[in-house]
Parts: sequence; structure tokens; C-alpha cells
Amino acid sequence: MISLNLQQKFTKMYRSHTNGELRIAHKGQEVVLSGWVQKIRNKGFMIWIDLRDRYGITQIIIDEDRCDKAIIDQAKDLGREFVIQVTGEVIERVAKNNKIPTGDIEILPSKITVLNASVTPPFTIEDKTDGGEDIRMKYRYLDIRRNPVKNNLIFRHKVAMEVRKYLSDQEFIEIETPYLIKSTPEGARDFVVPSRMNQGQFYALPQSPQTFKQLLMIGGMDKYFQIVKCFRDEDLRADRQPEFTQIDCEMAFVDQDDILNVFEGMTRHLLKTLKNVDVAEFPRMTYADAMKKYGNDKPDIRFGMEFAEINDIAQGKDFGVFDSQEMVIGIAVPGCSEYSRKQTDKLIKWVKRPQVGASGLIFAKYLADGTFKSSVDKFFNQDDLQKWADATGAKPGDLILVMCGDTDKVRSQMSALRMEMAETLGLRNPKEFAPLWVVDFPLLEWDEDSKRYHAMHHPFTSPKPEDMHLLDTDPGKVRANAYDLVLNGNEIGGGSIRIFDKDTQALMFDHLGFTPEDAQEQFGFLMNAFTYGAPPHGGLAFGLDRLVAILGGQETIRDFIAFPKNNSGRDVMIDAPSAIAGDQLDELALKLNLKTT
Amino acid sequence: MISLNLQQKFTKMYRSHTNGELRIAHKGQEVVLSGWVQKIRNKGFMIWIDLRDRYGITQIIIDEDRCDKAIIDQAKDLGREFVIQVTGEVIERVAKNNKIPTGDIEILPSKITVLNASVTPPFTIEDKTDGGEDIRMKYRYLDIRRNPVKNNLIFRHKVAMEVRKYLSDQEFIEIETPYLIKSTPEGARDFVVPSRMNQGQFYALPQSPQTFKQLLMIGGMDKYFQIVKCFRDEDLRADRQPEFTQIDCEMAFVDQDDILNVFEGMTRHLLKTLKNVDVAEFPRMTYADAMKKYGNDKPDIRFGMEFAEINDIAQGKDFGVFDSQEMVIGIAVPGCSEYSRKQTDKLIKWVKRPQVGASGLIFAKYLADGTFKSSVDKFFNQDDLQKWADATGAKPGDLILVMCGDTDKVRSQMSALRMEMAETLGLRNPKEFAPLWVVDFPLLEWDEDSKRYHAMHHPFTSPKPEDMHLLDTDPGKVRANAYDLVLNGNEIGGGSIRIFDKDTQALMFDHLGFTPEDAQEQFGFLMNAFTYGAPPHGGLAFGLDRLVAILGGQETIRDFIAFPKNNSGRDVMIDAPSAIAGDQLDELALKLNLKTT
Repeated sequence: MISLNLQQKFTKMYRSHTNGELRIAHKGQEVVLSGWVQKIRNKGFMIWIDLRDRYGITQIIIDEDRCDKAIIDQAKDLGREFVIQVTGEVIERVAKNNKIPTGDIEILPSKITVLNASVTPPFTIEDKTDGGEDIRMKYRYLDIRRNPVKNNLIFRHKVAMEVRKYLSDQEFIEIETPYLIKSTPEGARDFVVPSRMNQGQFYALPQSPQTFKQLLMIGGMDKYFQIVKCFRDEDLRADRQPEFTQIDCEMAFVDQDDILNVFEGMTRHLLKTLKNVDVAEFPRMTYADAMKKYGNDKPDIRFGMEFAEINDIAQGKDFGVFDSQEMVIGIAVPGCSEYSRKQTDKLIKWVKRPQVGASGLIFAKYLADGTFKSSVDKFFNQDDLQKWADATGAKPGDLILVMCGDTDKVRSQMSALRMEMAETLGLRNPKEFAPLWVVDFPLLEWDEDSKRYHAMHHPFTSPKPEDMHLLDTDPGKVRANAYDLVLNGNEIGGGSIRIFDKDTQALMFDHLGFTPEDAQEQFGFLMNAFTYGAPPHGGLAFGLDRLVAILGGQETIRDFIAFPKNNSGRDVMIDAPSAIAGDQLDELALKLNLKTT
Repeated sequence: MISLNLQQKFTKMYRSHTNGELRIAHKGQEVVLSGWVQKIRNKGFMIWIDLRDRYGITQIIIDEDRCDKAIIDQAKDLGREFVIQVTGEVIERVAKNNKIPTGDIEILPSKITVLNASVTPPFTIEDKTDGGEDIRMKYRYLDIRRNPVKNNLIFRHKVAMEVRKYLSDQEFIEIETPYLIKSTPEGARDFVVPSRMNQGQFYALPQSPQTFKQLLMIGGMDKYFQIVKCFRDEDLRADRQPEFTQIDCEMAFVDQDDILNVFEGMTRHLLKTLKNVDVAEFPRMTYADAMKKYGNDKPDIRFGMEFAEINDIAQGKDFGVFDSQEMVIGIAVPGCSEYSRKQTDKLIKWVKRPQVGASGLIFAKYLADGTFKSSVDKFFNQDDLQKWADATGAKPGDLILVMCGDTDKVRSQMSALRMEMAETLGLRNPKEFAPLWVVDFPLLEWDEDSKRYHAMHHPFTSPKPEDMHLLDTDPGKVRANAYDLVLNGNEIGGGSIRIFDKDTQALMFDHLGFTPEDAQEQFGFLMNAFTYGAPPHGGLAFGLDRLVAILGGQETIRDFIAFPKNNSGRDVMIDAPSAIAGDQLDELALKLNLKTT
């Protein structure tokens, strides 16, 4: 006996249940399902259809004995990705499938309706598809049907919701700041928007809501956040997007530690809620220490191989390569003392690649029996190499790798090698999460191209008061109240305590090469606002795309964006950007000025 | 004895509590507060400071007997909007203030630190300010400190959070769609963004994520929502913004009733959670009925005064004014039978204003004694007027107002008069909420300027199957599966069931005057997507700015936007839009083409 238990809310009854919902408890019920034909197996006397929607897969069984011939004929005409509606009875499967939640049941249909046909898709809608990146981007709407992409988008939604709930519970207010703002030359290149009503003038799309969130603090909003699109017209490196999403935050009446504590709490909440990972404590490390220990301001601390600066034990031993260089750095690679000649040669070749650019690599194998075998045995005896081991923390069985050169260069090269070894050894476990605060960033960095200092974070970052006296004499040494949150070797957030008085802000613009007039024209509204009772304030911004990717155990942000652009900034699905009509240009008082080649 | 109970988390201790937090239970504690000087009262021997932050106001008391002279002198130098930090003891007030939650206590300071001074603000930071609209917009960051603006922004946040929680609980996924998309000539004018990497080509900013959300349905995401900025480059009418926020939603495998039910649930949830208002049922009314009963597709049903079409009883009585017209409409205005000649003259003058454009107004007073007194007693006797009363539902004491003319015009005029009378009589109670679904909108509307039909909703809206046969013969009569949610006489949301097959979509573009080539070039990606198994789908979008304003009991959306633009599309605070540098134009391959006047 079939019980009729259709939910009232589905008036036309496209479905009474989703395809992930039915269990053995529904046995005997008449149900209506809708979805896509994932797969058809036709044995002649029996046909199985896997019916798919966002929620799962339900098996439809059609057999000669129990179904009308009309339904059998109809089923034979179905193709992959057809959209169908099935009315039928929930029955118990003879052969249960414990790999899917609906695997105990199947549907014996009394009616099948084709809601829409489908031509053959250009790639298979499977977890592992036969479609390449380009074709999947062009047909992104089909790519999204695949579990990996679908699940990434759902995961992204969950992350954003948890962020909002957490911050909202902490009395943060989400406030929308404008998208049509003012172009400023500081920082990256703006996307601009011509104004029709104010001809010859342009809005800019925000690179971040930075000045607005500061104005909100001056406006007394106290705790602000916003999950917001930002825009940068940069030449796109791999895995950069012209539009990206930030979790943008600002707080008033706070010091650096207050901010670090709040967002450590938020990150801990995300890790616990979404990944069921407990992280007791977020270590804090200065920028200087990060560079010294890892050659990198966003070190991956899921694994060791910390740098040892071994000038004192490596130099003065007549080994000219070391003696002539500013810095000698060693690391202990765990468990690689038995590397073959072929393997060490490969490493040497790897560090000499132009992307790394090292001139060479010295190694010392700390063998299991406690002896050393190195590529520089002529210059260093067992006692010398023991000192290397002590300095790098190498244990028997480890491989000590040493490079030398100018400090900045060799740090960067050794950082690359450290990451390469971690990758090779499988130490970058995507299920492990090791957050780290890097603090005390330099305020300014020298730019060779423009021959001037640029703000390392942005011009609104406050210098450390105790370093202010160096601004004129040694600007590169001035530290800022600036901090990054690093997760598994990726910068996922960064921020600073801001300048909140007009004089310091003017001084900063002066050091960045602004004339007082330029500073006033571009940022006068902010400096003016500082004179009306600006509270001390600071904040930070997370890159949501990156955060979601890393929490998802992946590194490609494109996989977590519904409709990403390619490396030329194009949306290949809708074919944008594109030419616009001449009268649109006229209305905007613009003419094309294309370079002829 | 003062107990030291500073919260550990405030390392530099800008504050241990907010200014809205302290109660009599905190008596005796030493606390640190920070905030703005709202008010200083100086009686010489005693000074009171109202210290303000987002959370409230706490009184600081400084007196000769209990405070150091240094603190007294310091307090005398403070001005309005100075940012200060106060350390002191919580004491019980002698004269309690039951108007504020902190009114039982005050702070006796041991230390005051000026964190930032303030010049005199250009207007008072009070609930009722002396600042006009222009000056408040220029100094919006000061305006935001005022409770009415601050509370509006906090309320907006709460509405958005409740929307997100509700939809998320209903398995909707918030998915970000791109901002840099493709310009299409259908609909309003796009804002465009020149592409530097694809010279001569432009992105457009989305007027809505319409096509993307449809692609997400084709992509199997099933239930989508997004709170998202949209953009329209329109000449700005009062209270329109070039950038505005939508709650954008779409569902697959649904019929109109499914959508109405879900979003009725959401709106009911908002009314209950945010306003503690229960609305049992959302009436549903066809567009045709709304026009007939209210002369308006977004009727305010908080009050009656429904239209009665009284041709049959008003015509044929030798009153030429009525006899010559297509339509005669009457309404019964409650309780206004005693209107004086002056009052009725004023009404007649009001309907003759160009904004309304009526040629005249007939009235009949249904007096308390049951007799009638009309402006047309020469033509209509008491029996005739009783019929008017029966038709309009007038009761003794009411005033019957009658206008006539072409159907469309007189409906619109009577609608304006009805709203005016409601306003006059105080029937538009902002604390009452009367939602209404208006359904069965026309598919197309004739546009006199372009001499062609335009989509009333948008080109993706599906016609009612039973009206399809009229598409060629009487296109204006074809009804769409389109609906609006109306709240208190404002359209707060609207949507439709979409076309989901290529042929119908092509037919629609044909009827909208697209050549097949144009349709393919602009919307080929969508029509193509329909061929890969598009499910039936539909959705709607709420205007968040308007929704928040109406829930907040107000009608000006600008008051609920942190940084609104003025009627010329300018942000007067940051002074945008503005000129950009010549090399920015060069990089974009553009030249200005200003008209000389």
C-alpha cells in the first residue's frame, strides 16, 4: 500500500524530496523527485538511472516486470544531463550501496516527465572530469555541477557565514561602504568608471575600503566589518584575480594586542567549526625573526628546518665559497642522510634554476652511525660538521643543506629550498593548520624603480613611536605597528594600527614623496576628519578567497570562486570585457585612443 | 576600597568597559572608559562630563572635594568631541537619571588622558542637529556619530544578518557573482569600466546578477542568494542611488507559489524578529485587481478607501462631466463628512496640481444623520447618492470623493488622492506593516519613446503558458509569471519564474526587437546554457535599502546608507568622481571628448 505524503508546499510538486533525502524509513511512500540524469545503465530488461541534484543521488530502477512499457521506452530515450521529474514508490534495494546516504533505497517509477533535454556536455560531469581548464571555464555552469566545485562554493558560503556570525556576536557591525569612490595614485592601479553626469570625471572601484573604515571609526561605529569585493587593475600573476573578496575589519580604542586577540579568536573559531581542528595558541614572531629563521615573512611552520646562520663555524676554514660571502645558512632536512648522488645533484640543479638563482649548494649527510659525509670534506672535518649539526639541530639520519650569499638573497633562496624539501617530504599536510602572527613589519620599503620609499602596508599605518626618530636618518629601519596572519605559509590577513592625527599623517605623506598639496587633494577628507576627534584605531583585512582555499586544504583560489576570470582578466563564459556602442562612449564624453601597431 | 577589575584583554587598557555598560553593581570598581565628550557642565566647584561612545553615555563627575586640582583644570580645557580616556571609581549617583541605562552611577576620575582633541564640529552631534543635509553629507563621519544615523546603520546590519541566517537555515547558499561583467543595452544604462589589458573593451558593473544567478541554477546550486551591490547609471530621481543593494535570490525546481511561500516566510521572520510584529497572512492580489481597486501596482493596504467604479450609477444622469468620460471612480474617506468648503476647495486645488493633473473633483458628504450633501445635488438625488455610498462602502460620517477620465489616468489620479487623504488622516502608521503580493504582472509594456514593447520585469521572465497565444495578436495582454512584494505601499521586492528553454527565450528576444544575431551576441551564453539541461527556476530580488528604511519606519533610503551620493551622483565627502591623470587615460587607450558649450 502506497501512502501519499507529498509536502503541501510544492504546489506543482516538482519534488516532494531532494535526491539526498530518502532513507529506508521512507519505504512505501510515493515521492516526486527532480534532477539531472547522472548515469543510465541499460541491461535491456532493467534500467537504472542515477538521479542527481545538489543534495545527492537517488537510484531509479525501471524493470520489465514492474513498470509500464511506456516508461521503459521513455527511459531509453534519456541522455546524460537531461532534467527529469520522477514520481514513484520508495522501495528497498536488493543490493544496498553503503557509499551513498540513499543507498538503502531506490525508486520504482510510475511516471517520468522530461523537464528539459540536454545536448551532450563538452566534458563529463564527474568528480574527475575529462575537461581541461579552458573548456571548464567556458562552460563554468556545467563545471559547477561537479562535486568538487559545488562543494567548494558551499564551503565558501559556510566560511563567510561563520565569519559573520562570530563578528556579529562580538558586536561588530557590517557596514556597506561605497563602490564608486575616488581614484588615488598611491598603491596599485585603480579600475576607473567614467561618470556620465560629471563628464570628464571618473570614479574608481575600491582597492579596499581603507579610508571609509577609518572614517567609520572616526564616526564612532567602534567595531566594523564587511565582506566586500575589492578591485586591482594589476597584470595578473598566476592565481590572482582583478576582483577579489576581503573580510575587512576595523576597531576603535584598541592596541595591536586587542586586534590580534579578536582575530585569533575568529580564526580559532573557523578552524574549530569548519575543520574540527583545535589550535591552542597562535605564535607571534617579529618580521626580523621570520626573515632570520625562515627567510620569509610568511613562513610555513607546520614543519621545522629553521635556518641556522653558521658564519662563525663555516667561515675561516679556507673554503673560499663561504669565506667570501656575507651570510652562510644551513638547514637540517629530516631523514634524508641517505640521499644518493643523483638526488643531491638534482637538488643542486634545482637551486641553480633561474627562479631560485643560487650559485650552488653544499650538503653534509649526518649518517645514522653518527658520522658525517659532506660535499666539502676537504675543508671541514667531523668536528666541524658536528658543529653544523648542533647549529641546525640535525640528528643522525638528517641531511644538512647549506647556502651562502648576500643576506637577503640567500635567505630567499634557502626559503625556496626549504619549501621544496617540505613538499618533497610530504610535510605540507593540508589537514594540519599552523597559524602564526608576524608582527613589527618595516614601515617603509625602498623601491628601486621609483627611487623612493613606499609604504610597506599602506600610508595610514602608524610607525612605532620608539622608532620615529629614525624616520629622517634611517627610514628603512622604522618599524610599523603592522602585522600579518600567516596560515600554512600563506598570508591570509594583514593590518595595522593606524595614524589618527593629522600631523603624523602629513609627515608620512611627506616621507612618501607627496607634496602637501597632493596629500591634501587626495586625502584631505581623511586628514580633516582627524581634527574632529579621531579615536585611536586599527584593523585588518583577510583575503577571503585565499582563506577559504587554505581552509579547504587547497591553494588555488580560482577553484573557490563561482565565476573567475582568466589571466588576461577575461570572463570567457560571458565573453567580457567587450566593445561598447559608440553612443555609450559619446554619452560618457570619451573617445577610443587605440595604439596602432 | 576600590577593587581593580580590569579586563585582561585590554592590554593598554584604552577601556575596561564601554560607556553603556556600567550599572550599580559595578559600584566601587576602578574602571577605564574612553569616548567622546558629548557635553560639559561646569558649575565651577563641580564639572560633569557626558562621555559618549557607540554603546551609550556615562557621566563623569569632577568636584573640588574629591578630585585633584590638576584634573579640574584639565577638565576645564576639554571641548565638545574631544576624545578622552578616564580612569576612575564607579560611584552611586545622588540624583539618578532613569532615562539612560547607566543613570544610576557616575565616575569619579583619578586620571584623564586626552587621546585626541577636536576642533568645533560644523554642526551639533545631537539627535536633533542644527546641521542641514549638505553639511551633514560633507562631514558624514560626524553625522554618523548622531544616534539616528548610527542606529539606522546598526539596524541595517541586523536586517542583513537575519536575512542571511534565515536563508542559510533554508539551505540557500550565498554565492558571490562577478562585478566586472558585460554591458548589455537592454534595461537601464550601465556603468562601464574600461579594460587596460583588453584595450578598447569595457566591462560593465552589474545592474543585477540576473544572468549569473540563472547560470547557478543551471549549474545545479538549487537555492542561491546574495546580498550584493548593483549599479544603474540613471538620472537620479529623489532618493535613488547609483549604487544600491539587493537581496538577490533564485531557486530551481519551483513554481511561483513555492517562491512566494519562501519569501513570505522570510519577510514574516524579519517582521517578527526585528519589529515584534506578527503578520498572519500575506494577501495575494492580481496586478489587474490592484489597478482596479487602488489604481496602483503597489497599493498601501494599511487602510481602506478602495476604488469603486461607479459608471453604472453615476452616468446617465445628465451630468455631462461624468457622461463624457470612460471611467468614473469613487472612494469613501472615513470620518470627513464635516469637511468645510475651505477644505473641499483645497482638495479640488490639490488634484488640479500638474503633479496630479485631474480636471476636477466631485464630493458627496454622507452626513451623520444619514443624509447626503454633494457638489452635484442638481443632478443626483439622495437615492442616487445612497448608491454611491453603497458602492464605495461609505458609512454615515464619511466623505465620498469621485473623479472621472480615461481609465489609466483617473486611476493614477485617484491613487494619488487616496494616498494624500491617508497621509492627512494619519492612516500611514509606520509601526503597522501590511505586506501584499501583487501577481500576474503584464509581460510587456509599450514604450512610446522607442515605439516598441519592453519587458516589464526583464527579458528572462516567462509568459503564462495560457496567454502565449496572444503574443502575436495582443502582446500587451500577455501576463507573466511575475510578482512583487509590496509593503506599506512600497515595492520591496519583485521577481519571476524564468524562461528556461532556448526557443522561448529566442521568441522573447524577437518580440523585444532583438535580431537573432544581437540576441546571440549579448545573451548567447545564457541561451546556450539552456540547451545543457536547464531546470525550471525562478526567483526574486529585494531592494535592501528600501526594505530597511520601511522596516525602520522611514521612507528615505539615504538615511540608511553609510556614505550615500547626492542627486548628481557625487560623494561630497571624498569629492568623487574626479579628474584622473593623463597617463591613466593613456593606459586605458582613452581620450576625453568633452563637448564645448
